Amino acid sequence: MTAREVGLPATVPLPTRGDLPERVTIWEVGARDGLQNEDTVVPVETKLEFLDRLADAGLSVLEATSFVHPKWVPQLADAEQLLAGLRQRDGVSYPVLVPNERGLDRALAAGVRHIAIFASATETFANRNLNRSLDEQFAMFDPVVTRARAEGLDVRGYLSMCFGDPWEGPVAAEQVVKVGHRLLDMGCSQLSLGDTIGVATPGQVETVLDGFGSIDALAVHFHDTYGQALANTLAALRCGVSTVDSSAGGLGGCPYAESATGNLATEDLVWMLDGLGVRHGVNLDALADTSAWMAEQLGRPSPSRVVRALRG
Amino acid sequence: MTAREVGLPATVPLPTRGDLPERVTIWEVGARDGLQNEDTVVPVETKLEFLDRLADAGLSVLEATSFVHPKWVPQLADAEQLLAGLRQRDGVSYPVLVPNERGLDRALAAGVRHIAIFASATETFANRNLNRSLDEQFAMFDPVVTRARAEGLDVRGYLSMCFGDPWEGPVAAEQVVKVGHRLLDMGCSQLSLGDTIGVATPGQVETVLDGFGSIDALAVHFHDTYGQALANTLAALRCGVSTVDSSAGGLGGCPYAESATGNLATEDLVWMLDGLGVRHGVNLDALADTSAWMAEQLGRPSPSRVVRALRG
Repeated sequence: MTAREVGLPATVPLPTRGDLPERVTIWEVGARDGLQNEDTVVPVETKLEFLDRLADAGLSVLEATSFVHPKWVPQLADAEQLLAGLRQRDGVSYPVLVPNERGLDRALAAGVRHIAIFASATETFANRNLNRSLDEQFAMFDPVVTRARAEGLDVRGYLSMCFGDPWEGPVAAEQVVKVGHRLLDMGCSQLSLGDTIGVATPGQVETVLDGFGSIDALAVHFHDTYGQALANTLAALRCGVSTVDSSAGGLGGCPYAESATGNLATEDLVWMLDGLGVRHGVNLDALADTSAWMAEQLGRPSPSRVVRALRG
Repeated sequence: MTAREVGLPATVPLPTRGDLPERVTIWEVGARDGLQNEDTVVPVETKLEFLDRLADAGLSVLEATSFVHPKWVPQLADAEQLLAGLRQRDGVSYPVLVPNERGLDRALAAGVRHIAIFASATETFANRNLNRSLDEQFAMFDPVVTRARAEGLDVRGYLSMCFGDPWEGPVAAEQVVKVGHRLLDMGCSQLSLGDTIGVATPGQVETVLDGFGSIDALAVHFHDTYGQALANTLAALRCGVSTVDSSAGGLGGCPYAESATGNLATEDLVWMLDGLGVRHGVNLDALADTSAWMAEQLGRPSPSRVVRALRG
């Protein structure tokens, strides 16, 4: 069954309240943020096929892997192998997460041209995740960004805990804006605002985005822990955000685990964008096939509602 | 863990783009639309405890059951027993679905004061679901509504397939508006626009709502089959809709079935309303407890992401 057959008005762009971007770039994080949160360690050949099929489906930004120490993320311990085997394509970018200078060394050795760093918007999470204060994390990232830029690399800054923090509770928009601007000033070309624990709601999203003044360099990264990811994305689109992070098939969230902590599913995002007449370049049927196949590799249904409805 | 502890900014109403209603009435359909779509037949005592706990949690409209023939909906074959055992409360309404005159007879005999009828926006679904043409369904409903009104009952009209139809594909807004007005003109005090197969997206929601001119008598009823229910609800709220249908714990949708066809989960709606500073009168913790308890009765996790996150 295709999306069209079940009543998706894909060919009838509809008017909508508030401005929407004409086109959205989907920053596909399934292979990195998705797989690093799955219990199953996926073989490198499967990951390569996954990335190939995602590119075939029309996704143009595929976050491929991470150079975080394998002790912390064994699921991505094959980063070098993966990058060596990757059949890169024109028009497709394969950014890689780099936690520190050692990670940058590995990325440069592997020929990576686009990296992402992962900072915290809150003092407590910087402490818990990076064992550093909020200020110290910048001291750690500064040489990474400076060297990467000197080598001609593009650098994205992830900012985590932008809406709520498990230890601090709600995070003030001013705090997010301040820390975010430090990453942009440091040389990040894009800032991805992450709702790491999935607690944000649309008004809060608008408040934070408005706080930045210009939204040109901003992307959003929502988790669906409390079911808010797509509503928050709609709010962000209406603020003018045109880069949205999502995970093919909702990878990283378990459909029957106690807590569904995964990223927004790319298919659920594409369904909404199709209905809104916002271009994105992705073939939903090919993408849903890919996610259904990956769900089989993982031995469980996809957490994406669209995938389960179309391919269940 | 309470909602507040995980970072929900419930006490800080946030500014938001577009007008929002100050207060939303949640029309809780779990006991009817939810349970009629569960495989498990729940004992009447459990249903009564469920309704009691939902009222304790602050819900003020509890659709209790249906007088559809038990052959079609065996899950609700105990409608008379349930209504006889119901401990009604001041300030809480217990509407009951009534399919035809025979159903109205049963409802009146049971002392029901608030009924709902279930019409189709499309010709094909009227045919498939009611074995009648679009016009013939009105001939069937007219004496139901007329008699109910004469008896002093309040009548809600459900309108199904308002956005997409499994046989006809996308449904034109003009068609929905035309059929909807016939139900209002017939004497329905409220019209609930249903996305029965869950295909709608926010722009389409706005187009349909705008088509009605006045939204005062309108409610929305979204299914989460394609993950769009909460984003569509946000769009509807911004059009001024202030009655939203939802199902406690996402009852009626199976969290690991092939297709997640359930209603919007009340908890996921409440989470968003809390964040938006829209009043609703529901205690989220008490509601999540109730839904977690009902999930136990059904022997499976709740499809509500909030319930799984808070009570998983």
